[in-house]
Amino acid sequence: MVEPATDTIASTKLVPLLKDELDIVIPTIRNLDFLEMWRPFFEPYHLIIVQDGDPSKIIKVPDGFDYELYNRNDINRILGPKASCISFKDSACRCFGYMVSKKKYIFTIDDDCFVAKDPSGKAINALEQHIKNILSPSTPFFFNTLYDPYREGADFVRGYPFSLREGAPTAVSHGLWLNIPDYDAPTQLVKPLERNTRYVDAVLTIPKGTLFPMCGMNLCFDRDLIGPAMYFGLMGDGQPIGRYDDMWAGWCTKVICDHLGLGVKTGLPYIYHSKASNPFVNLKKEYKGIFWQEEIIPFFQAATLPKDCTSVQKCYIELSKQVKEKLGKVDPYFDKLADAMVTWIEAWDELNPAGAPAKVSNGKA
Amino acid sequence: MVEPATDTIASTKLVPLLKDELDIVIPTIRNLDFLEMWRPFFEPYHLIIVQDGDPSKIIKVPDGFDYELYNRNDINRILGPKASCISFKDSACRCFGYMVSKKKYIFTIDDDCFVAKDPSGKAINALEQHIKNILSPSTPFFFNTLYDPYREGADFVRGYPFSLREGAPTAVSHGLWLNIPDYDAPTQLVKPLERNTRYVDAVLTIPKGTLFPMCGMNLCFDRDLIGPAMYFGLMGDGQPIGRYDDMWAGWCTKVICDHLGLGVKTGLPYIYHSKASNPFVNLKKEYKGIFWQEEIIPFFQAATLPKDCTSVQKCYIELSKQVKEKLGKVDPYFDKLADAMVTWIEAWDELNPAGAPAKVSNGKA
Repeated sequence: MVEPATDTIASTKLVPLLKDELDIVIPTIRNLDFLEMWRPFFEPYHLIIVQDGDPSKIIKVPDGFDYELYNRNDINRILGPKASCISFKDSACRCFGYMVSKKKYIFTIDDDCFVAKDPSGKAINALEQHIKNILSPSTPFFFNTLYDPYREGADFVRGYPFSLREGAPTAVSHGLWLNIPDYDAPTQLVKPLERNTRYVDAVLTIPKGTLFPMCGMNLCFDRDLIGPAMYFGLMGDGQPIGRYDDMWAGWCTKVICDHLGLGVKTGLPYIYHSKASNPFVNLKKEYKGIFWQEEIIPFFQAATLPKDCTSVQKCYIELSKQVKEKLGKVDPYFDKLADAMVTWIEAWDELNPAGAPAKVSNGKA
Repeated sequence: MVEPATDTIASTKLVPLLKDELDIVIPTIRNLDFLEMWRPFFEPYHLIIVQDGDPSKIIKVPDGFDYELYNRNDINRILGPKASCISFKDSACRCFGYMVSKKKYIFTIDDDCFVAKDPSGKAINALEQHIKNILSPSTPFFFNTLYDPYREGADFVRGYPFSLREGAPTAVSHGLWLNIPDYDAPTQLVKPLERNTRYVDAVLTIPKGTLFPMCGMNLCFDRDLIGPAMYFGLMGDGQPIGRYDDMWAGWCTKVICDHLGLGVKTGLPYIYHSKASNPFVNLKKEYKGIFWQEEIIPFFQAATLPKDCTSVQKCYIELSKQVKEKLGKVDPYFDKLADAMVTWIEAWDELNPAGAPAKVSNGKA
């Protein structure tokens, strides 16, 4: 419906994109000096800091940032017995931030990620690119060979069905990393000196039916569309694996996005990943995951959800049942994980009661 | 098995890659002056020129190129009544060249495609990049977020199953175009001035189960692996549509590659596409295709092939039956096309009898 303008002042873009509709979630165990570099891009936004490890430690946040901080004591206090679903001593704890946010969009970033430069030497505003990705549709049902057709200077190519050109709503924008690539421990050990120097100037939709390894280092998503699927699992303290938190969230999210007709994009923006984690420590965390994933991935590739799963919560509960039934045989860990998936949804719904939709900006800050 | 070197001289790379195992197929109606620009890259290879239109016209080929040329009279003489499956007055005739080749690999290019430059200004040897693509595996079963994992400086990322890291044989390498993008007539009409200036430095595998719009302008494939599926259909003279030749081949090829566990790559190399074809003429050729494709694509998305289809020919004959059964209802054209698909396979098998494998270089030119 076309209507005349009624408020010409509010339409002038004076505020950063989605300023009141997006939270930045950062899991950390140290002072957040890395925010200095991000100041021009992040300062207008609200931060949710999830402090991992010793809750008595004081985390310093540079002046001028608007933030709330949660440590383990806070998590236990807020969730009570349901806090068991939030990992401890692992960056998987970040998903607590997704749960307590009341915004429509989440951007999450690791504290060893710095601002990258594009090939012209310009600092990349990663958040701005994520917002572009998430606000424009995805194309999960047919591949466009010129990549994102909604980008300036691009379009759908010959042979692309016109009925599919409206695309699907974008639920996830997965960004990449220059410098230290996101390799597993065996690859780190074999290629200690490999650095990612290739800037690929593309954003693309991961097709429906295709799984991908989702990395949580530089990730944006629409909390309203997919939030309850972004559970980072049970990792770290007391658990048999680590470094599969984001992978788990990615597999579950992708299966549910495919079922609900939502899109997942990958590619731009890049951040600069400053420091490789210790490959020996990583191997210890990963080794069970490395063989379990050989069964987990076929499981997710074959997973289908019934038609009456019309909400993310319903999909996720259904998926938890399938995890218990099919992956419980692989290891008792998956029984525990399936239970935690249910607890996560219960906690999510408690903190996000129906009828309390995410805050949407009305254009007046 | 590791064995000691026996011929150290032959191992020195003195000849261009796949020199005796690859034919370049060019459909044309004009003198091939465009080859001058390609001379440093194409001259070592054998060309198969398929002359379209008036067979009495003399096509000039620049000196120094090794070629064979077929006009309509040749096609009729060689194929007899089966020549009906080869389109006339349409670049779809190029697939005759695939059939008469005796090499393992085909590269096909349009005569309005010039050498493009990479961002550093260096001339791109498109053929060399296609050969790299086709000689390294594909990854159709799981998406790698850092694109081609076999490329220098890249690898599989964390969370990529180790059992899938050997990849699948690559059957097709689909290259892209700078300058004039491959748009359909409606998009050409709406965006007459749009030029593709974005050089995306990536090669990626199109995942299993995902269709894509395959353009025949800049295309390489393994004839042994997928050749009989590369039929460009019935277009041009006497047919109700045009400009869907490569699309048709792409849909059939992708469904068969998915069934046989073969990979299809897209991305690099770029060529420089010099001249936009007339959008009004294109609209006339395309308009039936534009609504037919709304039924064709769901048909191919749903198509499955039975397990006993173990060769490309068997797959293709099975697909022709499904085309007749399912698309015959859309228009009688598809009945005719389904018959032509069968004729194509008969002609292919006649010119390529079993037991006469494609010539493979023994390393001695």
